[in-house]
Amino acid sequence: MSQAERLHLEDVYVGQRFESRQHFLDADQIKRFAAEFDPQPFHLSDEGARGTMFGTLAASGWHTMALTMRLLVESVPLADGLIGASTEVAWPRPTRPGMTLQVHSEIVDIKPSRSKPDMAIVTIRSETRSEEGNVLQIFTARMPVYKGRKSAQR
Amino acid sequence: MSQAERLHLEDVYVGQRFESRQHFLDADQIKRFAAEFDPQPFHLSDEGARGTMFGTLAASGWHTMALTMRLLVESVPLADGLIGASTEVAWPRPTRPGMTLQVHSEIVDIKPSRSKPDMAIVTIRSETRSEEGNVLQIFTARMPVYKGRKSAQR
Repeated sequence: MSQAERLHLEDVYVGQRFESRQHFLDADQIKRFAAEFDPQPFHLSDEGARGTMFGTLAASGWHTMALTMRLLVESVPLADGLIGASTEVAWPRPTRPGMTLQVHSEIVDIKPSRSKPDMAIVTIRSETRSEEGNVLQIFTARMPVYKGRKSAQR
Repeated sequence: MSQAERLHLEDVYVGQRFESRQHFLDADQIKRFAAEFDPQPFHLSDEGARGTMFGTLAASGWHTMALTMRLLVESVPLADGLIGASTEVAWPRPTRPGMTLQVHSEIVDIKPSRSKPDMAIVTIRSETRSEEGNVLQIFTARMPVYKGRKSAQR
């Protein structure tokens, strides 16, 4: 994407939507992430998940979040990058092997900074959904977004 | 850790603290995580960070979070696992190569479930700190915690 296509503060609005590409998640990816970052039995094997609230292998929530971030970086082209000031993450349903993830994002709030006239805090709400449309994760982030240089020079 | 040492609802209390081991983070780990999950220039190289709010290479916040989860799994021995119902994550300072991370956690709230007498929602607040004691990340998670089988049989 060229710099011209990237979004500054004057290009974003409440209600603006973004849709990512799809990512296919298999059991190997789930087990590899879990072994490094979240080695709980239910994230490592079907056997380990037996008798737990998951029943069968489920991805670490942080794996779903990391994949969501990858898809967000590709689909929400903010000129100064996606830098979360504060965030919330919740997982209404487990992420399972064989699912195809897609991230649907919407700008839900824009709060101009009181101290910095060229900046606002933009709130983006992102749902990570399975192919069937089930919501696996809800991610809300507040991010600083700046006016472009051109508009600052006007 | 044996099952006997793992904590059920009757073993936890507000004010209870946990301290993880330390994890040394180098530039290679930061770049590898970013290449897979958060490929923004400031997470990939010093050159890419020049002229951004980071100035030099900084870890993805989700890398700090994933490492925090690893350290939490090892240091907060809840019997039924660490399964976040809803969470908040914020990063007061960037995580940099060469830092040694440690997670300091405290149980800050226990809310008995109205519908399930053997369960409560336990809120854990975890600070991920550098060796110098600077807070890099504040993570708050609400997790279901269950009574042990013994006490349920009483």
